[in-house]
Amino acid sequence: MTDAVALTLDPDRLFPAESRARDIARRLYAEIADLPIISPHGHTDPSWFSSNAAFTDATTTFLWPDHYVTRMLYSQGIAPARLGIRSDNPELPAETDLRAAWRLFADHYHLFRGTPSRIWYDHVFATVFGIDVRLTGATADHYYDLIGDKLASEAFRPRALFDRFGLEVLATTEGALDGLEHHSALQKDWHGRVITTFRPDDVIDADREDFVANVDRLGEITGEDTQGWRGYLAALEKRRAFFRAHGATASDHGHPTAATADLPRHEIEALFARIRSGRGSAADAELFRAQMLTEMARMSVEDGMVMQIHPGAMRNHNPWLFAHYGRDRGADLPVATEYVRALKPLLDRFGNATDLSIILFTLDETVYARELAPLAGHYPALKLGPSWWFHDSPEGMLRFRRNVTETAGFYNTVGFNDDTRAFFSIPARHDVARRIDCHFLAELVTTGRLAEDEAFDLAPRLARDFAKAAYKL
Amino acid sequence: MTDAVALTLDPDRLFPAESRARDIARRLYAEIADLPIISPHGHTDPSWFSSNAAFTDATTTFLWPDHYVTRMLYSQGIAPARLGIRSDNPELPAETDLRAAWRLFADHYHLFRGTPSRIWYDHVFATVFGIDVRLTGATADHYYDLIGDKLASEAFRPRALFDRFGLEVLATTEGALDGLEHHSALQKDWHGRVITTFRPDDVIDADREDFVANVDRLGEITGEDTQGWRGYLAALEKRRAFFRAHGATASDHGHPTAATADLPRHEIEALFARIRSGRGSAADAELFRAQMLTEMARMSVEDGMVMQIHPGAMRNHNPWLFAHYGRDRGADLPVATEYVRALKPLLDRFGNATDLSIILFTLDETVYARELAPLAGHYPALKLGPSWWFHDSPEGMLRFRRNVTETAGFYNTVGFNDDTRAFFSIPARHDVARRIDCHFLAELVTTGRLAEDEAFDLAPRLARDFAKAAYKL
Amino acid sequence: MTDAVALTLDPDRLFPAESRARDIARRLYAEIADLPIISPHGHTDPSWFSSNAAFTDATTTFLWPDHYVTRMLYSQGIAPARLGIRSDNPELPAETDLRAAWRLFADHYHLFRGTPSRIWYDHVFATVFGIDVRLTGATADHYYDLIGDKLASEAFRPRALFDRFGLEVLATTEGALDGLEHHSALQKDWHGRVITTFRPDDVIDADREDFVANVDRLGEITGEDTQGWRGYLAALEKRRAFFRAHGATASDHGHPTAATADLPRHEIEALFARIRSGRGSAADAELFRAQMLTEMARMSVEDGMVMQIHPGAMRNHNPWLFAHYGRDRGADLPVATEYVRALKPLLDRFGNATDLSIILFTLDETVYARELAPLAGHYPALKLGPSWWFHDSPEGMLRFRRNVTETAGFYNTVGFNDDTRAFFSIPARHDVARRIDCHFLAELVTTGRLAEDEAFDLAPRLARDFAKAAYKL
Repeated sequence: MTDAVALTLDPDRLFPAESRARDIARRLYAEIADLPIISPHGHTDPSWFSSNAAFTDATTTFLWPDHYVTRMLYSQGIAPARLGIRSDNPELPAETDLRAAWRLFADHYHLFRGTPSRIWYDHVFATVFGIDVRLTGATADHYYDLIGDKLASEAFRPRALFDRFGLEVLATTEGALDGLEHHSALQKDWHGRVITTFRPDDVIDADREDFVANVDRLGEITGEDTQGWRGYLAALEKRRAFFRAHGATASDHGHPTAATADLPRHEIEALFARIRSGRGSAADAELFRAQMLTEMARMSVEDGMVMQIHPGAMRNHNPWLFAHYGRDRGADLPVATEYVRALKPLLDRFGNATDLSIILFTLDETVYARELAPLAGHYPALKLGPSWWFHDSPEGMLRFRRNVTETAGFYNTVGFNDDTRAFFSIPARHDVARRIDCHFLAELVTTGRLAEDEAFDLAPRLARDFAKAAYKL
Repeated sequence: MTDAVALTLDPDRLFPAESRARDIARRLYAEIADLPIISPHGHTDPSWFSSNAAFTDATTTFLWPDHYVTRMLYSQGIAPARLGIRSDNPELPAETDLRAAWRLFADHYHLFRGTPSRIWYDHVFATVFGIDVRLTGATADHYYDLIGDKLASEAFRPRALFDRFGLEVLATTEGALDGLEHHSALQKDWHGRVITTFRPDDVIDADREDFVANVDRLGEITGEDTQGWRGYLAALEKRRAFFRAHGATASDHGHPTAATADLPRHEIEALFARIRSGRGSAADAELFRAQMLTEMARMSVEDGMVMQIHPGAMRNHNPWLFAHYGRDRGADLPVATEYVRALKPLLDRFGNATDLSIILFTLDETVYARELAPLAGHYPALKLGPSWWFHDSPEGMLRFRRNVTETAGFYNTVGFNDDTRAFFSIPARHDVARRIDCHFLAELVTTGRLAEDEAFDLAPRLARDFAKAAYKL
Repeated sequence: MTDAVALTLDPDRLFPAESRARDIARRLYAEIADLPIISPHGHTDPSWFSSNAAFTDATTTFLWPDHYVTRMLYSQGIAPARLGIRSDNPELPAETDLRAAWRLFADHYHLFRGTPSRIWYDHVFATVFGIDVRLTGATADHYYDLIGDKLASEAFRPRALFDRFGLEVLATTEGALDGLEHHSALQKDWHGRVITTFRPDDVIDADREDFVANVDRLGEITGEDTQGWRGYLAALEKRRAFFRAHGATASDHGHPTAATADLPRHEIEALFARIRSGRGSAADAELFRAQMLTEMARMSVEDGMVMQIHPGAMRNHNPWLFAHYGRDRGADLPVATEYVRALKPLLDRFGNATDLSIILFTLDETVYARELAPLAGHYPALKLGPSWWFHDSPEGMLRFRRNVTETAGFYNTVGFNDDTRAFFSIPARHDVARRIDCHFLAELVTTGRLAEDEAFDLAPRLARDFAKAAYKL
């Protein structure tokens, strides 16, 4: 490795360049760098922790599940098959040499310059694996071997890493029909707090091909008659209780838009009958999703679950990729998303509830200052989730704080979500968020907009306390 | 107060952090800090100056009228009643202890960290009242007593403060039916220049429940037959003249959208007949507002009044709050607003008029670089108002300058508006604007985009001269 | 000139203010400042180079063709006639004294403070003409005389300047019916690489008044029967080949929207029949443009031409100006532009093609992070053009990099386009782009997001290599 370039993490990375602000950021960060991690929303696999089986190799652990990686490589002409990702289509034979796939990634690691993936990977390589050379074609084998060896060790089993990462709580996300067996198992034999989140899109979104079957199944699981509106709601309430029994404090809703509705009972029942039969139109499906956000808010008022809304992704934009490789391959794309009119029906009914907490997310940064901060700075029921997905990045986080804080303040925000299935990157992602928050606070102090003692008071709130409170953890 | 935290205003606040730029900003600011204040658009109450009665206490003077404050407190679960604000609803009894309301505000002053309200209040407390400790629960009584005492003194009467604040001119805003008695009185017995602005939304916006009655009243006041289109226009022209006689140099139009229209005469008359009868549709009301912007532009060409357009607020989004506490409680929300197509009918007719000045505002920052700067950088009739409302803030002002200047330059902008009903905060708001403009100019100088002598030439124009010229003051 | 203010270009202009970042930017810039210029998209006149005739005077060379200048002056009440620009309307007599027009510009040079025009002009004046005093009313004659004298010299002939400017390749843009005589002539007697670009809007956009005549002419030129769909396509393919023979490596498409379509054959033929007859509706014209983008992509897959899409300008917004002075006078205005849904029909068919390169531009910066970076960071066929037109400016370029890089990386971008008809300003424009890219890279290095060796590797790619590769030059 004598020819290799050193991999070093700048201890002042992501802090302001200017020296006084940098110094303040550095001192703020020192106070919060080692705080436990609250991960209140994400997509890790609970079976990792229930089985505690070792991860096997760098390629399947890091590349295959990471749609940030697969999408960037794909954009430069590297098809999934060349990374070893398998398709049902026999004409798309996958690379079977996992090491070759890793080399291909290493050869193209320069594509990630300037992206958060690069920051996260370098952080994982340096701090989790102790690697001290940059990933390149020349160091690919060194990486592959070293990572493989470490993953085979006890210290790199999921539960050991959970403790090492300082995770105080980790929320996963499961569909409404999930049996939550892994969470049950976990609760019995381990101290780690891995909780579920109730994500009922599978039984709410009538655009899904499996919607009717899912609602049938919902009836079977709960013993309710989901042919009718009343039984359908009762079944959902039972599932919410089941999820709460497995640690859930929150629901999550991934809708194409933020539309809500509050229809008269007879209209809802007619709408439900149409979509329940599988013969509803696209407009019916949209209206039903809208009505269900309001129903979920009503249930949240009753059962205390926090409600997350993640709207605005157009899923599976690339039909060829979807047909051959399925979901979550990097072909989901943001679209412009409106909130002020969309949320009004729900807010008219529940916006003034002080015992309801709806956390709003967006992929459309134009609404930060125009819609989300004004909404959250007024309605007791609303709070703002952190910058999400494509915007979960240094520049994206700064845009979030700069656009939101002046109208919503800090106290209508909820700290950081890593929202990831990339377990190894969780500390890296929280580290980026903590550094950027210190950057922003230091800017405010340096420009006389915040007293230094107030910045020191806020830093741990942004890093941990707001998330604990907002998600009732 | 020995335990209290000091309240200090950083003399370099809002300047760039980097030392060379900060130095330039500091020197620019020294040239303009004490210039007289031009306040060409705002919502102070002219009766304050005609009666010159003392303000009574901190709570009613600062909290009740400030929707920035009431909205933020409300978002964190503090209902208006707890601040002492009264509702018609007897089930919402208001706190009657004004001091207790002030304490509640003080206990939650941390909510305003990072918001412009915090900057404005600290500026008022420190410079107007000479307070040297931070507002907290512990200092709430000290504040309440001290402010109450000072407000009772002669030096804190409205006219004395007007002079102390260095106000060269202060524009208020009145509806078309207003008798302007306070302005009349003022003109007779005081040197202070408090002028009115003609805001005819009450007789133009047919969505208002009082529209028909208002147009009836318009006829009575003017002696014109406002049953017909011709008489309606004549009545408006008379009111414009009446307002001009009370100092008005500008009109103001607060429409939901920026839509304009230029219909054939027979269509206008049919439209007017529908909305005049009170039986027009929502689309009729929108089209009528659109037509009336063009009519107002035509009258401005004739009588020389500057025309301000403030579109894009969805008013009274929260029906519960509106029902119990009325307008202006912080529940107005911005919506996306289009200008390029919307203004075309008006511009087709009057956009090339060099003797017309239409000042455009927005709550939708996405149009700064995309629409407003290109429009104002082309049409002689258009100029750009400063960042407005939620965007009247340090970050908001910087976004305005950075997005607008490269296409519209400085000379198609009109200086600062405080646009406030919070009289005490006017110097604070202008101070923020002046500091941010110096910040921006210093950035240009430091990065070689502007010569230093040019920055010194521009600073007083941005602080005072552009406003005087644009508003014909 | 002893009273005049010095004209000096800050050698560190557009670099970050903070000293460490500035130092890195300075060192990066030193490596790329003198690289040859690749100008892969622009609007210079090929006859300049075929005739090599001298430019005559400052006014006609700099003012008349520069819509950035004419629009800003117009916005401040200076009509084209006062600059000497002629209209068909005899009631608009033009100033005939070109020197007087120049003085008028000089008297209003302060309007351009803070705009990129100011940066470009000062760069041209200082570096191309060696002028050392600022342009003002007082120095207008000095400028006019000096520029006139230099333009008359051999060293300021177009071909000499082409070499002096270090142009490695310069692409012009011609309509589909252009005979390309100048390019033919150039290829025969000069080493300078001035190539054409195929811009077929004139035979694709049925909203043009000359569309039917143009398609007739297309048939005549190519010997194809352009009455029918098959012949029309064949004619376009022939023209593409003709353009390629004159150096073209790219097509360009300036559509009102980014809409694409992929209709069944029989629907296309019916649509073509309607628009070919001149009796198509506006919706037909829009759908036909949409379909033609997909057809052009198909031809690009076949013939290897790069495809540029420049959507979102509403042309000729000012009917009075258009009637009297024609196109390109500064009255084109951006409108909000959607890409994710708009491009889907084309991408469904060709988005996964690794041998297709579609370069996307926008006048709507809200899509940088929301739509364009996610699209280009996924689809092999897509790349992102640089910040365009109103956004071709220091702040605009920084917004582009900051909004795009984290999702699309650097390698899905294509370097700089000057996109100008202002030949003299080409080095100035590339210099701004190079400085801003060094600024951005230095920021990444200073904040620990990029290693310094990687910044040095990227700088020449951004300055030259990416453009050469993306445009196949």
